[in-house]
Amino acid sequence: MDIKEIRLEDLDVTAFIEEQVAAIREAVGQGQAVNALSGGVDSSVVTLLGHRALGDQLKTAFVDNGLMRQDEPQYIQRIFADFGVPVEIVDAQDQFFAALRGVVDPEAKRDQGITKVFYKDVFGQLVRDCGAKVLLQGTNYTDVEETVAGIKRQHNILEQLGIDTQAAYGYTVLEPIIQLRKPAVRAVGKALGLPEELYARPPFPGPALAARVIGEVTPERVALVRAATLIVEEELRDSSAFQYMAILHEDRVTGLRDGKRDFGYQIEVRCWDSTDAVTAAPTNLPFEKLRCIAERVTQEVPGVVSVTYNIAAKPPSCIEAV
Amino acid sequence: MDIKEIRLEDLDVTAFIEEQVAAIREAVGQGQAVNALSGGVDSSVVTLLGHRALGDQLKTAFVDNGLMRQDEPQYIQRIFADFGVPVEIVDAQDQFFAALRGVVDPEAKRDQGITKVFYKDVFGQLVRDCGAKVLLQGTNYTDVEETVAGIKRQHNILEQLGIDTQAAYGYTVLEPIIQLRKPAVRAVGKALGLPEELYARPPFPGPALAARVIGEVTPERVALVRAATLIVEEELRDSSAFQYMAILHEDRVTGLRDGKRDFGYQIEVRCWDSTDAVTAAPTNLPFEKLRCIAERVTQEVPGVVSVTYNIAAKPPSCIEAV
Repeated sequence: MDIKEIRLEDLDVTAFIEEQVAAIREAVGQGQAVNALSGGVDSSVVTLLGHRALGDQLKTAFVDNGLMRQDEPQYIQRIFADFGVPVEIVDAQDQFFAALRGVVDPEAKRDQGITKVFYKDVFGQLVRDCGAKVLLQGTNYTDVEETVAGIKRQHNILEQLGIDTQAAYGYTVLEPIIQLRKPAVRAVGKALGLPEELYARPPFPGPALAARVIGEVTPERVALVRAATLIVEEELRDSSAFQYMAILHEDRVTGLRDGKRDFGYQIEVRCWDSTDAVTAAPTNLPFEKLRCIAERVTQEVPGVVSVTYNIAAKPPSCIEAV
Repeated sequence: MDIKEIRLEDLDVTAFIEEQVAAIREAVGQGQAVNALSGGVDSSVVTLLGHRALGDQLKTAFVDNGLMRQDEPQYIQRIFADFGVPVEIVDAQDQFFAALRGVVDPEAKRDQGITKVFYKDVFGQLVRDCGAKVLLQGTNYTDVEETVAGIKRQHNILEQLGIDTQAAYGYTVLEPIIQLRKPAVRAVGKALGLPEELYARPPFPGPALAARVIGEVTPERVALVRAATLIVEEELRDSSAFQYMAILHEDRVTGLRDGKRDFGYQIEVRCWDSTDAVTAAPTNLPFEKLRCIAERVTQEVPGVVSVTYNIAAKPPSCIEAV
């Protein structure tokens, strides 16, 4: 790996922004660039860097893959409108769900289900349509490390895997924050004027809620984990944890509803203390908070009879289940 | 349901023991009775009642179904030897695992996998061999309620389901503690002189570790949950909780071992506060204890990369997962 990390303590935020803006301008020249905004802190920072560098030469798209949080596309579009950044919402839900049908292996989900549809189908089409030569993307340093180590294939890491994206998908990928870990990315986001609700947002995986559904990813199962995610994020927003999430298990367990047997779903809650996602420990949440989350999830998410809290550290666990 | 509960506060332990001993004597007469001892508090109490009533007329068997805790058959045999109760260990591991092969539905596990093998094959054979007319068994009041309510088929509840066991399996089932819930059973056990490690033992399900393996029950998967059970029971012995257990999930999750991806197992820990098993709440354990359990399980049980703690109450959860 010949990419060198810039540590938070070594980061000159102003200089970094100027350098990346200049680098983006140079790479794009007079052409067009396309930018994939997911609403996470990484792609939000890249969007503002790209906007500062390119203005109208940048086309920012939010791909609605059907795997996002509740009302996410509209929420993100609204926030970036305040920066003068127009965000086009691309409805690709059917394409993603079609590619994910019957796929249960985690790597196959990420690879076939997410990477191929995202790059080749949806983004390839967008780039061809607008004549852009360059795609900006929010790959960060931890993504690189994990992919190189063979832990988890990140959806945005084709270059690092030695795949020639120009030949494979018809465009070039620029990754302005690839030398930064999350805390450094947040510092850049803050300096760029991102609202705290975005730059301090917990990390959200590239494959989105598909990474939080064990087993087959269907619209119905994503709806369940989306509803649970809403509850978990509401309840843990003030926890100051690094990341928190709801996971829908494929296993079903025996439950009891209205005095009758109910063979139902289980939701797993994870909440992590971490600074860099390389190692992480479960957060020591007040037990009353855990009880409250479990009660809300079993009452508000249809068919859920059981809720668990992850208590293992990374390693040997990972932050996401899939 | 025409069985009437005797509440702990209404229980005259001495009178209850005398009545049950007399009832057992009357039912068995000069014949032989067979007794199924599993090592749980229910069957341990029934064994001592039967021994007091029948002496040598009682044959006590411990069916080793391959689904028990670590070293359980020998441990139980040793304890009852101190009471002068000979316990025959019946090795039926192959029969149970053969019946459980490929079975994943929880009710099918209990019904085909456990009930049929236990009653018809193993116990039926034992009864025929020794000429016994009567089988003593430790069904309690909560078992009856849950079966009648359709929540969970208890393995020992044929009579209550309207099955004529005389015709179906060739013998009659006597259930001396069917009017008692767990606290009352413990009180009787204490009065009978059972050691505290038995009468205060957390409840253990009839289908044993098969109730704690989600998905197919194989010798390999039982070995994993058995190892995790040993750790959880060691760590929570002093918790004064009502019941605690380890459950092996069928779902696998992404983990990380020696810097490499390890798609591994997940163990769920449950620990319940309850008095009667009808309702139950997860125990507020010290977080340090949860972390310690997770660390031991991921280090000591091969292939486990993730551990969770159940945080949902019963209802809508149940105490056991299967």
